[in-house]
Amino acid sequence: MPSLRLPSASRPADLLGEALLESALTIDSRVLPIEEFHTWFAEQRESGCFETIRIRFADLDDWYWEDGTGDLRHRSGRFFSIAGLDVRTDYGQVPSWCQPIILQPEIGILGILVKRIGGVLHCLMQAKMEPGNVNTLQLSPTVQATRSNYTRVHNGGGTPYMEYFSGDRRGRVLVDTLQSEQGTWFYQKRNRNMVVETSDDVPAREGFCWLTLGQLRRLLAVDNLVNMPARTVLSCVPFLSPTPVPTEIGTGASAGDEGFGAALAGTLSGRRGSPHSLFEVLSWLTEAKTRYALSVRRAPLNEVSGWRRMPDRIVRDDEKFFRVIAVSVDADTREVHRWTQPMVEPVGQGIAAFIARRFGGVVHVLAQARLEPGYLDMIEVGPTVRYLPGTPAPRYLDDVLGAPRERVRFDAVQSEEGGRFYHAMNRYMIIEAGPEFGQDPPPDYRWVAADQLVMLLAHSRYLNVEARTLVACLHSLW
Amino acid sequence: MPSLRLPSASRPADLLGEALLESALTIDSRVLPIEEFHTWFAEQRESGCFETIRIRFADLDDWYWEDGTGDLRHRSGRFFSIAGLDVRTDYGQVPSWCQPIILQPEIGILGILVKRIGGVLHCLMQAKMEPGNVNTLQLSPTVQATRSNYTRVHNGGGTPYMEYFSGDRRGRVLVDTLQSEQGTWFYQKRNRNMVVETSDDVPAREGFCWLTLGQLRRLLAVDNLVNMPARTVLSCVPFLSPTPVPTEIGTGASAGDEGFGAALAGTLSGRRGSPHSLFEVLSWLTEAKTRYALSVRRAPLNEVSGWRRMPDRIVRDDEKFFRVIAVSVDADTREVHRWTQPMVEPVGQGIAAFIARRFGGVVHVLAQARLEPGYLDMIEVGPTVRYLPGTPAPRYLDDVLGAPRERVRFDAVQSEEGGRFYHAMNRYMIIEAGPEFGQDPPPDYRWVAADQLVMLLAHSRYLNVEARTLVACLHSLW
Repeated sequence: MPSLRLPSASRPADLLGEALLESALTIDSRVLPIEEFHTWFAEQRESGCFETIRIRFADLDDWYWEDGTGDLRHRSGRFFSIAGLDVRTDYGQVPSWCQPIILQPEIGILGILVKRIGGVLHCLMQAKMEPGNVNTLQLSPTVQATRSNYTRVHNGGGTPYMEYFSGDRRGRVLVDTLQSEQGTWFYQKRNRNMVVETSDDVPAREGFCWLTLGQLRRLLAVDNLVNMPARTVLSCVPFLSPTPVPTEIGTGASAGDEGFGAALAGTLSGRRGSPHSLFEVLSWLTEAKTRYALSVRRAPLNEVSGWRRMPDRIVRDDEKFFRVIAVSVDADTREVHRWTQPMVEPVGQGIAAFIARRFGGVVHVLAQARLEPGYLDMIEVGPTVRYLPGTPAPRYLDDVLGAPRERVRFDAVQSEEGGRFYHAMNRYMIIEAGPEFGQDPPPDYRWVAADQLVMLLAHSRYLNVEARTLVACLHSLW
Repeated sequence: MPSLRLPSASRPADLLGEALLESALTIDSRVLPIEEFHTWFAEQRESGCFETIRIRFADLDDWYWEDGTGDLRHRSGRFFSIAGLDVRTDYGQVPSWCQPIILQPEIGILGILVKRIGGVLHCLMQAKMEPGNVNTLQLSPTVQATRSNYTRVHNGGGTPYMEYFSGDRRGRVLVDTLQSEQGTWFYQKRNRNMVVETSDDVPAREGFCWLTLGQLRRLLAVDNLVNMPARTVLSCVPFLSPTPVPTEIGTGASAGDEGFGAALAGTLSGRRGSPHSLFEVLSWLTEAKTRYALSVRRAPLNEVSGWRRMPDRIVRDDEKFFRVIAVSVDADTREVHRWTQPMVEPVGQGIAAFIARRFGGVVHVLAQARLEPGYLDMIEVGPTVRYLPGTPAPRYLDDVLGAPRERVRFDAVQSEEGGRFYHAMNRYMIIEAGPEFGQDPPPDYRWVAADQLVMLLAHSRYLNVEARTLVACLHSLW
């Protein structure tokens, strides 16, 4: 049998996988116990002086409407711009539409620096302010930098710790993939998701702290705490163990979960019994890409029909979906202390949910082949249910919202990236279903085992950003 | 260690991998012995009546220059069109250029149907005429169909055997990935590469024959015989064996190869000793994508500066690289008997070569992270040397062309796809180097083990089309 596998030396060697697992099982640490973390984080929030206020487009500094196209651009030619998209497809219920879209062609870096402290891997995390956050401060990766950031286009200070990710002090690379972001709001954006291990003596600067993977797994259950960049990097950590995960000390297994956490741990330890092999999952995705036609054309913003530009916002005629707004930001802890920028503001809270099921004791989620116009390759694996306010109720939404409480394995509100999105939140849920969900769902859906999700995340752009958040949440359950 | 692997049930089960291997080791077959194949193929060539003549654009039927853009399009709105591309990049020596490009957004199918005959898997291959072939007829997959083809846009007969690939008689899918084609001539084109096994009683129609994988491996050494679509599908066959390949019956090991074929077979059987893990290879590719800036804009053909349109060709002012021409085709064995179409004609024969080396007995090739403007994601793994006439000599070209004869493991001229390209040929070479090539090549190059190439080919778009041909050629050597 031609078995496709990364050889055992696939990740940098010397038992690193076990070190990651050990860190994930270390649910508290003397470096910064969870109790103290919450105090520290509250202090960070109180000590900062941040203000985001909505302004008129005319009051944006250094941003202008480009002649001819009407695109909203920065005078430096960098950062990002707001342009238009013209979409035609036979996927879904709307055959064609126009919309504004964020163009940000540069590849940014989302990086977590890890280091052994007391023998256990700890992650260097930052309490980071972003203008779009509902609660100002969220827990962020060590480095969250656009290319413009780390090449210092805006003349602020350099990005701290950047030298461990792309400089000459780069440590041992443990995770390194390009992953997409919201395909309904970004045009072909991708960020480089990295985890890098260092053995240097790295002091935590003001606003940074060291946490184990186990502590981070616990914090994922808290609403709006772990930010989107941190969640996507954490989702890429390869929690696959050749030895069974000792689930008796799992953190997320709450009363009434009927052993879900233990089953999940067993799945990640390689227990088999999937209805589909990974090869079949890949083939299903390939098939989905040939099933639909999609034409995406970048269009000038002033040719986006069905939308209108007002002094302080760009909105759809029916005010649905999202708006483009402008904000002014005062921050005393960012590289640049005051700036203005456009942002995208969704009109309401969305839902992203996995329906999970055990087959032969192996935990699977019902993945959806999801087409969004901003994806580089049209379709990525998304949640079972992705609901955006203003759109028709998607398949399985009722199953998620109507699930009895004892079937809800995860339920928390998480924020999307606060640097581009203003108060963008989704309710992330994992529901465990029973045999009423059969092995053979409709063509755009497929049962994918939890360990297969981890394998897919070793590659770029298989899982979309909402699915990656859900994978991070799934890891909080074992 | 979190080892990333497809589980043992990764391909459809019941020892299929061993069946593929057995077919590959069956270097001749009573179904159609190689000697008889050559006779049969010559007869096919003689019995056909094909003529391709160059015509003026004005004599194209059903093709027109689009108002405004000057793009060359088909009246049906389908098939393909010739448009322009405006490219800016800091990769390579030319910072910006314009060029004509083929747009063919639909995903076609390249499929080989396999079936056990006398217990051994045989591939159903077609002696297929393409207008751009130097020798009219080449050996093609069972099915080689654009979406326009198989949905019968041009009102010809249906594509034979299509029902095994996308219809209700679909067999067991063994290979199924989307792979790119020439990124210098196509804009984001990709085809679905499939191998499907059937147990139906399938008669070989006129012009088709059954060959083992072993016979096909032998035929790859013949100039201009196995066409590009067949080579790319064959490259995706997962020849990884958990048991050692019995190399004493390998076909390609010629005198003086110093055991290269045996070492290759050992590598495919999982013998380890690579300088880099597959994870590191993926990380190297990710890094390359962040190293360079690339802006690709589709432009109207009539705004492509530096090129001019003449009555019978579109050429660069210095006549370098390639031309767009028009041809008229008469064929009695194609679905449509007479048609006209534009084609791309390169100005000379190119070179694509892998430099190979053994590290600890494991066969590696020196892969190049290659940027081409037509790739969906900017960079794919290409040959060590890719030379296009008219361009400056690339790095390592002299090492390839000046290699002593006893170092040349493969050397044959193969044609690119004859449906779009007119007399497009490349000399494909595999050279074995010694320790004078160190473990740490320049940043755009990386040693990749032969089994890692096979693992990458389980996914879409890691290896470019020239590298895939070279992988197919590599398989002819064990």
